[in-house]
Amino acid sequence: MPDIKEIKAGELDTGKFINEKVAEIRGIVGDGLAINALSGGVDSSAVTVLGHKALGDRLKTYFIDNGIMRQGEPERIAALFSGLGVRVDVLDAKNTFFKALKGVTDPEEKREAITQTFYKDVFGKLVRESGAKYLLQGTILTDVDETVAGIKRQHNVFEQLGIDPQETFGYRIIEPLVQLRKDGVRKVAEALGLPENTYRRIPFPGPALAARVIGEATPERIGMVRNATSIVEEELSGTGAFQYMAILHEDRVTGMREGKREYGSQIEIRCWDSIDARQASPTRVDHDTLCRLAGRIVNSVPGVVSVTYNVTTKPPSTMEAV
Amino acid sequence: MPDIKEIKAGELDTGKFINEKVAEIRGIVGDGLAINALSGGVDSSAVTVLGHKALGDRLKTYFIDNGIMRQGEPERIAALFSGLGVRVDVLDAKNTFFKALKGVTDPEEKREAITQTFYKDVFGKLVRESGAKYLLQGTILTDVDETVAGIKRQHNVFEQLGIDPQETFGYRIIEPLVQLRKDGVRKVAEALGLPENTYRRIPFPGPALAARVIGEATPERIGMVRNATSIVEEELSGTGAFQYMAILHEDRVTGMREGKREYGSQIEIRCWDSIDARQASPTRVDHDTLCRLAGRIVNSVPGVVSVTYNVTTKPPSTMEAV
Repeated sequence: MPDIKEIKAGELDTGKFINEKVAEIRGIVGDGLAINALSGGVDSSAVTVLGHKALGDRLKTYFIDNGIMRQGEPERIAALFSGLGVRVDVLDAKNTFFKALKGVTDPEEKREAITQTFYKDVFGKLVRESGAKYLLQGTILTDVDETVAGIKRQHNVFEQLGIDPQETFGYRIIEPLVQLRKDGVRKVAEALGLPENTYRRIPFPGPALAARVIGEATPERIGMVRNATSIVEEELSGTGAFQYMAILHEDRVTGMREGKREYGSQIEIRCWDSIDARQASPTRVDHDTLCRLAGRIVNSVPGVVSVTYNVTTKPPSTMEAV
Repeated sequence: MPDIKEIKAGELDTGKFINEKVAEIRGIVGDGLAINALSGGVDSSAVTVLGHKALGDRLKTYFIDNGIMRQGEPERIAALFSGLGVRVDVLDAKNTFFKALKGVTDPEEKREAITQTFYKDVFGKLVRESGAKYLLQGTILTDVDETVAGIKRQHNVFEQLGIDPQETFGYRIIEPLVQLRKDGVRKVAEALGLPENTYRRIPFPGPALAARVIGEATPERIGMVRNATSIVEEELSGTGAFQYMAILHEDRVTGMREGKREYGSQIEIRCWDSIDARQASPTRVDHDTLCRLAGRIVNSVPGVVSVTYNVTTKPPSTMEAV
């Protein structure tokens, strides 16, 4: 594992950082082509702008519609980057991802299926077709820490695991944000001219909504958690919390509708206060907001009869359930 | 289904009710023997005292230790009734129950396994040995409603389902509390001289802690939820809530201990405000209490890394999860 020198947000000079990274990317890619995948989160958005600053049109940016994104994401991202003058090609890969996720219930296997589909099938093909030899990626230091510690295999950490992406996938990975944590990335994103709703955007996992479903991530179950996620983000965006999410459980619980038993599903809400995602505590969301949220979810998401709020700290919890 | 005339708590004359029921029980049992099972809840405790008032020693009262009771229950009940001068025989049936529950995961099959084991195997045997022809039972009107509506098969409702217990099990069931709801039973229990910690005792389901485990109720999983239940009852008894409980989920969630991943279990806490269990809303438990509760559970119950609080109303939730 290479020794990564952390740059703390408090000590970060964003102008200097951006200039150095632009030069570094140019130095590595030279006259070649690079490619990157934009998910719309703050990390990949910052990398996209940074990469275009360094390489201009020699960076091809793709938005992979994997079918496990949040409501309205493809449209939001297309509008945002078109406004910034950055061309983003959208690729519909929904079927490929759902095929890879079929029957997979173990969290690590699920992450692995998404990683393999993303980097090998979908991206490998794009890279081969584009002739790019470099992949720009928004890995941050917390991803590396958690992967090395064995807490969670982040989708975007290879070199740290001793996997050679050049050998395995045919391209080299450049990670310009790897010395930063989330708070540092937000400052860089702001300095890069990204709008507040992007640089303040709450973290969202690489495996997207598949990480928000316990058990199999079918199109139907992803649809349920997508629906609940929209409601949770609407109701909790005002809290100023570090992150908030809806999780669809696999366990079934007894409920009732119109006086009859309905054996249904449970949605868990998590909302975290945290500085850098290493430690976290549940946000003090008021009781009425939680009850209203629960009411909206059981009324809007067919099959859901029960909603809970997580009250554990990290550790021993993690922020995501999967 | 016989038409049951409800007696509302507000209109209940406890002295008159007790006299009528004592006369009724005497009338039915005559010179015969009756038997009853005491779980320690307010319903079965009231029936026990009522039955002994009517029949004296001709009512045999058993406490069946089914292995799925809360911490310290057998000891608490023995001490209470010995103080009231009522003889209670304790029967250790732990192995019989766990054998019947082995491999059973469906909620209705779990309830059914407990019902069958209780009424047919364990109680059937006791009745045959005792020569009793009557079983006194603490069914209340809400049990009947929910069974008839198909929401939940209560363990103690037979006649309402068209099952003839005489034919099926060899005895007739007497249900002196069936016109009352929980609030009425509490008044009768108080009038019968039961202590406050019994007549104010929160409701506890017939299938006991097996109803508090999603999935298989093994001795190990029952031990986990028993441990969590003790903590929840300790922390929430001061709320004055109608009912509060810990539920062990079957879903596994990612957690971390000492910097390493621990793929662990989740405990759900439910705490209900309700008048009569027909409708309920989550109690406004303050954030610090919930966080302290979660901290105690993850520190005391091995394998638990996550704790949630239910924020749904009934309906569409039910009070119990199983």
